[in-house]
Amino acid sequence: MKPRHKGFTLWFTGLPSAGKSTLANLVAQEFRARGIGFEVLDGDVVRTHLCKGLGFSKEDRDENIRRIGFVCGMLSRHGVAAIAAAISPYRAIRDEVRAAIPHFVEIYVRASVETCTQRDVKGLYKKALAGEIKNFTGVSDPYEPPLNPELTVNTESESPAESAARIMSKLESLGYLEGTEAAYTAEEEARIHERLVRLGYLDS
Amino acid sequence: MKPRHKGFTLWFTGLPSAGKSTLANLVAQEFRARGIGFEVLDGDVVRTHLCKGLGFSKEDRDENIRRIGFVCGMLSRHGVAAIAAAISPYRAIRDEVRAAIPHFVEIYVRASVETCTQRDVKGLYKKALAGEIKNFTGVSDPYEPPLNPELTVNTESESPAESAARIMSKLESLGYLEGTEAAYTAEEEARIHERLVRLGYLDS
Repeated sequence: MKPRHKGFTLWFTGLPSAGKSTLANLVAQEFRARGIGFEVLDGDVVRTHLCKGLGFSKEDRDENIRRIGFVCGMLSRHGVAAIAAAISPYRAIRDEVRAAIPHFVEIYVRASVETCTQRDVKGLYKKALAGEIKNFTGVSDPYEPPLNPELTVNTESESPAESAARIMSKLESLGYLEGTEAAYTAEEEARIHERLVRLGYLDS
Repeated sequence: MKPRHKGFTLWFTGLPSAGKSTLANLVAQEFRARGIGFEVLDGDVVRTHLCKGLGFSKEDRDENIRRIGFVCGMLSRHGVAAIAAAISPYRAIRDEVRAAIPHFVEIYVRASVETCTQRDVKGLYKKALAGEIKNFTGVSDPYEPPLNPELTVNTESESPAESAARIMSKLESLGYLEGTEAAYTAEEEARIHERLVRLGYLDS
């Protein structure tokens, strides 16, 4: 059960609606295409499995992040690419998780509160701004940006595909993609798929 | 990051002090000797990482087991041998976890309450029997033995080494050890180590 590749943890941090989950899933597609074993630990999803009952106080947020970090560390020790997408607003806890995981790549997903508010389909920012939600990161709760992330992606000026490509390049330069090669990029695959559908070879 | 071997979850269930952790650690040593990647999720240890804040009500116990099961499933999907050692008193939740994990091997670690009470170094059984601890499995809380475990080990009539050997045989017959081979058993390794120390080749 020895892994073929070095495991690592790819940690997305940023405001709600900054684009963390979108990027996590795009990168996961790239990993799939290269045959890299991965798991996505999405903050929202994980709250129903690992972190049921935890709220949004500083203590609960810290516990949430520690728990995600614990699982990511375990997975990456066994050659898995663990992808965490969680607001993880506090620098100290992110750094605590980093210290516990030998191969830790932090991606700061940057976007302004204004942009995030516009994107937010659930209208949570508006509710928070109206005082209806307490402890909402970026509005009524702090967000501490990383000081030395491995990479910052600016989702206001870059498209998701551009950001994902920059993340893959970073992983490549850090040596985490050695020995893996995608036949096609996710974008190319999507185009090929689309064409096959158009030609009637595939249903959808 | 493709695993070389099929992952699986080895789930130890039984009363407190029945011998779950002891066996989990013995089997882990065997896995180490064979180069099988493993993780031990010990109920007591996990309570400080994954399950902080959970108590011993039925709901909390169920959540605890679901959470351990969630992590075991994730690990075993990636070719890891996930070893859970948790009282896991309720049959329905064990079966729920089993249903969610394709390669699930349940080991019932059997010992009577009397034997467990004698072994219990922390004196928890005595306190529970005196009414000082509420919700103590086997005394003031139910334990539902598995109906169809892959294996039952009787830790009253077998030594830990005997039980561990029976578990390894079971895993062998289920095909989970294919392609792995221990140079020495854990016991032989211990003897060799001891001899090297005695001869002055090793420090301790």
